[in-house]
Amino acid sequence: MTDGRRMVKAAANQGAPLTKLSQNEFIAGFHAIGEVRYHHRHPFHLLMHEGKLTRSQLQAWALNRYYYQSRIPMKDAVIMARSDDAAFRLAWRKRILDHDGDGVKPGGIEKWLRLVEATGLPREMALQGDGILPATRFAVQAYVDFVSTRPLLQAVASSLTELFSGKLIALRVDRLRQYYPWLSTGLDYFKARLTQAPVDSEFALVWVVKNSRTREDQENAYAALRAKCDILWAQLDALYFSYVSPGWPPPGAFKPAETSQVN
Amino acid sequence: MTDGRRMVKAAANQGAPLTKLSQNEFIAGFHAIGEVRYHHRHPFHLLMHEGKLTRSQLQAWALNRYYYQSRIPMKDAVIMARSDDAAFRLAWRKRILDHDGDGVKPGGIEKWLRLVEATGLPREMALQGDGILPATRFAVQAYVDFVSTRPLLQAVASSLTELFSGKLIALRVDRLRQYYPWLSTGLDYFKARLTQAPVDSEFALVWVVKNSRTREDQENAYAALRAKCDILWAQLDALYFSYVSPGWPPPGAFKPAETSQVN
Repeated sequence: MTDGRRMVKAAANQGAPLTKLSQNEFIAGFHAIGEVRYHHRHPFHLLMHEGKLTRSQLQAWALNRYYYQSRIPMKDAVIMARSDDAAFRLAWRKRILDHDGDGVKPGGIEKWLRLVEATGLPREMALQGDGILPATRFAVQAYVDFVSTRPLLQAVASSLTELFSGKLIALRVDRLRQYYPWLSTGLDYFKARLTQAPVDSEFALVWVVKNSRTREDQENAYAALRAKCDILWAQLDALYFSYVSPGWPPPGAFKPAETSQVN
Repeated sequence: MTDGRRMVKAAANQGAPLTKLSQNEFIAGFHAIGEVRYHHRHPFHLLMHEGKLTRSQLQAWALNRYYYQSRIPMKDAVIMARSDDAAFRLAWRKRILDHDGDGVKPGGIEKWLRLVEATGLPREMALQGDGILPATRFAVQAYVDFVSTRPLLQAVASSLTELFSGKLIALRVDRLRQYYPWLSTGLDYFKARLTQAPVDSEFALVWVVKNSRTREDQENAYAALRAKCDILWAQLDALYFSYVSPGWPPPGAFKPAETSQVN
């Protein structure tokens, strides 16, 4: 239980509402959550950034993460569908354009397919979801469910992991180039995100700050960011378990040095 | 990809429909799937049955599995809500009674809480879901989603893991008594399931056989059983990763030898 949640619970027990946080306090709280829970700290990423992953491990990562990428525009369309504010939808639509492209220039999904290919796996494998971990599907579906069923404030707040992605992606591009030069043709996704993500996360942060009218709203926004961090973290846990240590992919999942699966 | 799925795909490519399986072939197929994918083969269960789990590891298992148990009657209510056949609902209602009790005799959920207590954790921790793994939530929600959104035939077929649970539970009760005698006050759940599960799974099997009118229905029923096996397997993967090896619970999750959590 976080300190924040403990405080809310204590207050609820005593019937005393908590004071709304100032804008600066509220924003600082998001960063405090990210510091502890964002997946830049996950051991799978630490191995990646130390050059210690094998090609097979990077294949498993790219394949599974593709499933996440492929659901992001669907998640964003759910969020757009829930807002009656045309200006909000206009701003949010950019995210779908960034991922799906404009029909001429490739979007993030196409770029991620090129990353999959750079690892040596066929793009069809990613497109069909062949061999992805069930845990990947469950976590990604939890994200789509979250934005579909929670109040819009929480759906938007769950996107705030992007406040932290710029630093992680800058490091990743640097280390992927250094340690896995054979991946260099597949890095366009990350290069684009370096400029796209800050625009998105700043819009979302301003919107969340403006639309959090009570301390309860603020705590719910924090909970949404925590939930999203859990979703990202769980995907890497499953990759680590299946492909690093102990290294036991579940029945039916991608097995290293194979491109087709049995059972 | 299973042989069954490969065959269906090949047939689809050639436009040639496959022949419907005979009743015996169809039923044998469920058992073939269970042999490979049911969680009786999972390394976490193997350790449990060899007496190699610590008390903390059994605490984590009982705590997380409680969340699954607590959602089972909700899952069964979804299935009941989707049937317009009073006789089907009457038969299915037994499952909810088995889990929720009748207000006098305890049901499966109460019995699982006693198992949690026998491990040394307070029941409130399970009731509140304090410290359960996000991966547990995601997998369990995937089960509720599955029975909510798929055709009723697939929702019912997903329950057919109970064809295999009797043998696993009989072994488990035996080994829990042998290796973890301090758990012996918490085994009533399993004793009840030994007589409940066969009734449930036989009803469901007969219903699935009767309502699978085409080979496509039969293949969809197989896919539903595989999906359910994935849901059970993923829960044990997450337990193993977090509490056995490498033993890294995610931020906010239960940590051994603690009953309250930080962050």
